[in-house]
Amino acid sequence: MFIAKIIGNTWATQKSESLEGLKMLLIRQLNPLTGELFGKTMMAVDSQTGAGLGDTVLIVDEGGSARQSLGLNNAPIRTAVIGIVDEVTAYGKTTSFH
Amino acid sequence: MFIAKIIGNTWATQKSESLEGLKMLLIRQLNPLTGELFGKTMMAVDSQTGAGLGDTVLIVDEGGSARQSLGLNNAPIRTAVIGIVDEVTAYGKTTSFH
Amino acid sequence: MFIAKIIGNTWATQKSESLEGLKMLLIRQLNPLTGELFGKTMMAVDSQTGAGLGDTVLIVDEGGSARQSLGLNNAPIRTAVIGIVDEVTAYGKTTSFH
Amino acid sequence: MFIAKIIGNTWATQKSESLEGLKMLLIRQLNPLTGELFGKTMMAVDSQTGAGLGDTVLIVDEGGSARQSLGLNNAPIRTAVIGIVDEVTAYGKTTSFH
Amino acid sequence: MFIAKIIGNTWATQKSESLEGLKMLLIRQLNPLTGELFGKTMMAVDSQTGAGLGDTVLIVDEGGSARQSLGLNNAPIRTAVIGIVDEVTAYGKTTSFH
Repeated sequence: MFIAKIIGNTWATQKSESLEGLKMLLIRQLNPLTGELFGKTMMAVDSQTGAGLGDTVLIVDEGGSARQSLGLNNAPIRTAVIGIVDEVTAYGKTTSFH
Repeated sequence: MFIAKIIGNTWATQKSESLEGLKMLLIRQLNPLTGELFGKTMMAVDSQTGAGLGDTVLIVDEGGSARQSLGLNNAPIRTAVIGIVDEVTAYGKTTSFH
Repeated sequence: MFIAKIIGNTWATQKSESLEGLKMLLIRQLNPLTGELFGKTMMAVDSQTGAGLGDTVLIVDEGGSARQSLGLNNAPIRTAVIGIVDEVTAYGKTTSFH
Repeated sequence: MFIAKIIGNTWATQKSESLEGLKMLLIRQLNPLTGELFGKTMMAVDSQTGAGLGDTVLIVDEGGSARQSLGLNNAPIRTAVIGIVDEVTAYGKTTSFH
Repeated sequence: MFIAKIIGNTWATQKSESLEGLKMLLIRQLNPLTGELFGKTMMAVDSQTGAGLGDTVLIVDEGGSARQSLGLNNAPIRTAVIGIVDEVTAYGKTTSFH
């Protein structure tokens, strides 16, 4: 599980039926201590937290977990938003993401 | 989940029976914001979206997800095309893939 | 499975319901032989070992394993604390983490 | 899923019982467009395709998929040969592996 | 699946109950052709092969596979020893590990 930032959206008319109605977000991993984005641009789905562009989110990158998070047992998904991060504390310093 | 481009095809006469009839595509990951391909050449299967050479596609890289996407519960597959990407929006800019 | 150090905490008001009550820890991997932290900051959950800030812990990074560790079959989790490391022995040298 | 070349064999007298009778092959990933081997030497099992030393093969690297490929539901395996690659086509060029 | 060398042991008094009685080994990946160790130090469990310090072992790094190997369906484990490697053959050369 890791922290990421939502940087965009994806549209696909032709897709697996079970993806209908899911937001398909573009994300990049975020170092919560420095605010830096890193790694490749990934795609994550969300149907539960209502996270949007610019939000700092908690991501689970595994199919079984992603499906359970969204209550979609038959969807071909792996990467899902499972929370919106308010703040982190590390090394005695608190960083807020609102 | 990530975005990739279909760059080729694979043929294998001798293979697991449950792979019969599946398109075996060569893909490379695509940075949707810059159009650059990166990472190693992978193999993905498709039976559902009808994606072809040159298409920008949405990939799920996990067996449970891939099998559900294709309705093939007993196939030894991990990487599957689950959609054809029309466009992405990031940083206020929209990129179309048609 | 790998050894990590707990470096902080994460707070998220808006999250998947099944995450309620779980500690959401920030961790980094630890080279147990040199004491160096390395790799990206990850998020791990704990409900069982009572591990806290500064502890050296044993991590399992896979959903099925994580869920079984915590007795939470329906939680969208992947990375979990499964033990607090007392010491390691390697190359004839013992390193204690208390 | 990826393409690899079989570069050797492994022998282990003392092993999990469910591995009895499986070929334990050494493989390295192959860039099908350039013919270059890359990445670390891995171990893959085969009981189905009859692939041998020097063959270019299709690999699935996930336990659920590997077990289904070999019809061995209880074997502790993750990486399996699921086909022998005849040829690939990319960028208008066909490469044969026989 | 990959080949590794056992380089040490880990002790943890406070841990998930289902880990009781399992050996918790420190391993590093081994290039079987050159004898070099590489990559990070990982933790693997063993209850079946009796492998010990200095042994060259076959590792499966996936929860479902690891649990089946050890007959521990409810243990939070991912990385397990499934065999002790006697020798490998590659490029016409045989390397023995005893």
